[in-house]
Amino acid sequence: MGVIGRKHWTIAEGHIPSQSSFLDRALVSHETACILNAGDSDAHVALTIFFADRNPVGLPDFGPYRITVPARRTLHLRFNDLTEPSSVPRDTDFSSVYDSDVPIVVQHAGLDSRHAEVSLLSTTAYSES
Amino acid sequence: MGVIGRKHWTIAEGHIPSQSSFLDRALVSHETACILNAGDSDAHVALTIFFADRNPVGLPDFGPYRITVPARRTLHLRFNDLTEPSSVPRDTDFSSVYDSDVPIVVQHAGLDSRHAEVSLLSTTAYSES
Amino acid sequence: MGVIGRKHWTIAEGHIPSQSSFLDRALVSHETACILNAGDSDAHVALTIFFADRNPVGLPDFGPYRITVPARRTLHLRFNDLTEPSSVPRDTDFSSVYDSDVPIVVQHAGLDSRHAEVSLLSTTAYSES
Amino acid sequence: MGVIGRKHWTIAEGHIPSQSSFLDRALVSHETACILNAGDSDAHVALTIFFADRNPVGLPDFGPYRITVPARRTLHLRFNDLTEPSSVPRDTDFSSVYDSDVPIVVQHAGLDSRHAEVSLLSTTAYSES
Repeated sequence: MGVIGRKHWTIAEGHIPSQSSFLDRALVSHETACILNAGDSDAHVALTIFFADRNPVGLPDFGPYRITVPARRTLHLRFNDLTEPSSVPRDTDFSSVYDSDVPIVVQHAGLDSRHAEVSLLSTTAYSES
Repeated sequence: MGVIGRKHWTIAEGHIPSQSSFLDRALVSHETACILNAGDSDAHVALTIFFADRNPVGLPDFGPYRITVPARRTLHLRFNDLTEPSSVPRDTDFSSVYDSDVPIVVQHAGLDSRHAEVSLLSTTAYSES
Repeated sequence: MGVIGRKHWTIAEGHIPSQSSFLDRALVSHETACILNAGDSDAHVALTIFFADRNPVGLPDFGPYRITVPARRTLHLRFNDLTEPSSVPRDTDFSSVYDSDVPIVVQHAGLDSRHAEVSLLSTTAYSES
Repeated sequence: MGVIGRKHWTIAEGHIPSQSSFLDRALVSHETACILNAGDSDAHVALTIFFADRNPVGLPDFGPYRITVPARRTLHLRFNDLTEPSSVPRDTDFSSVYDSDVPIVVQHAGLDSRHAEVSLLSTTAYSES
């Protein structure tokens, strides 16, 4: 087989709660894009974030987020950790689009611990060749 | 690349609990369709809701719900907020179909707070070109 | 557009907990296949259930489950409710395959209330034309 | 119809919490790949696990995990149970790739019981022919 994956992905849902019931990094409320690069070349991914009421981060005021996923590696990217060109606002609806130079696979995951009970979600993202 | 997305989408699951343990809008039980329009033209979306035991809202008695997602914007649409041509009944099974004039991406999300513990779900919707 | 959907669907995950913390039907632990028939003809669906260690229900000892989803209706089918040709065993891993004579859309949903906290999951099923 | 499924699948998300609130196997924190083989021939599946900071299990130091799903059977494979060629480390991000010699369908499921409340997730995996 060839390398598995596609170059263009979208996660239409996004929302980072500002509240968490825990300090442990594993249990802080977060949104994650799990990105697999199963191929033999590093993946250079441009990540653009869209909002309800303002221009997307990356366009036109900023360049997009630039992420590298090395060959044969997975990256579980937390939106909470993004800082360049700017951090992702909390308690705000957003969507994210991924454009890679080599095939990748993207899965969305979230953990909500606003209350003491942890709730999880996950879905394979939408993709195009 | 061209604009990411497809014009026809379906979320087969739908059910808004009438009960919630919280008054905070973020934590009221709800169902959401997260709609990304990453393109340069506004998306005009006709939303039809199907039920188990009656004709779909929109057909034949009503026109469908009419939603606009501006260019380069995301809309996290709560079914709870729909009022025209009618509100969506609570505690009732439904499905939803989206027909857009430009490519969009749709993801389903839900939050259930009938009990004090919040539970989440999410999935990329079913799409066709 | 034509009628949205595909004729062949699979939900690889299935497991009905025998325990629930509630008697309310809405909160009893359950697995559901949400089936939308957005078209103008009734959908006749043959549902086959596969197990880890025995022949599938439907083959060769039974015919498959026979389900009708009327035109322009949705059916949120609980596996808990299936009785003919037999009920679905609890606490047992299974998968389900749907073969319809007209296009449909299938989404998997589950609710687990073994403990007092309700947990939800959902995903669009795997489909083929 | 022919046999439903595809030969190549990916679950980009993976993470087994080392903590659980229960000893009952059903409620121990786990990650599962639900694999349906609806066809008439046994499926021989090579499973490769990718990490963030080391070479994938299976390459180049080990052969991949070798799994057989018999004809007309489902296998709900827990990553927790994998031992050959090595166990899957806990509290560690990973992704998994499935290469089968016959068509299969793969769905991802997870249960988190680090706290006393059980949280579930599930999604159909990413597939290619």
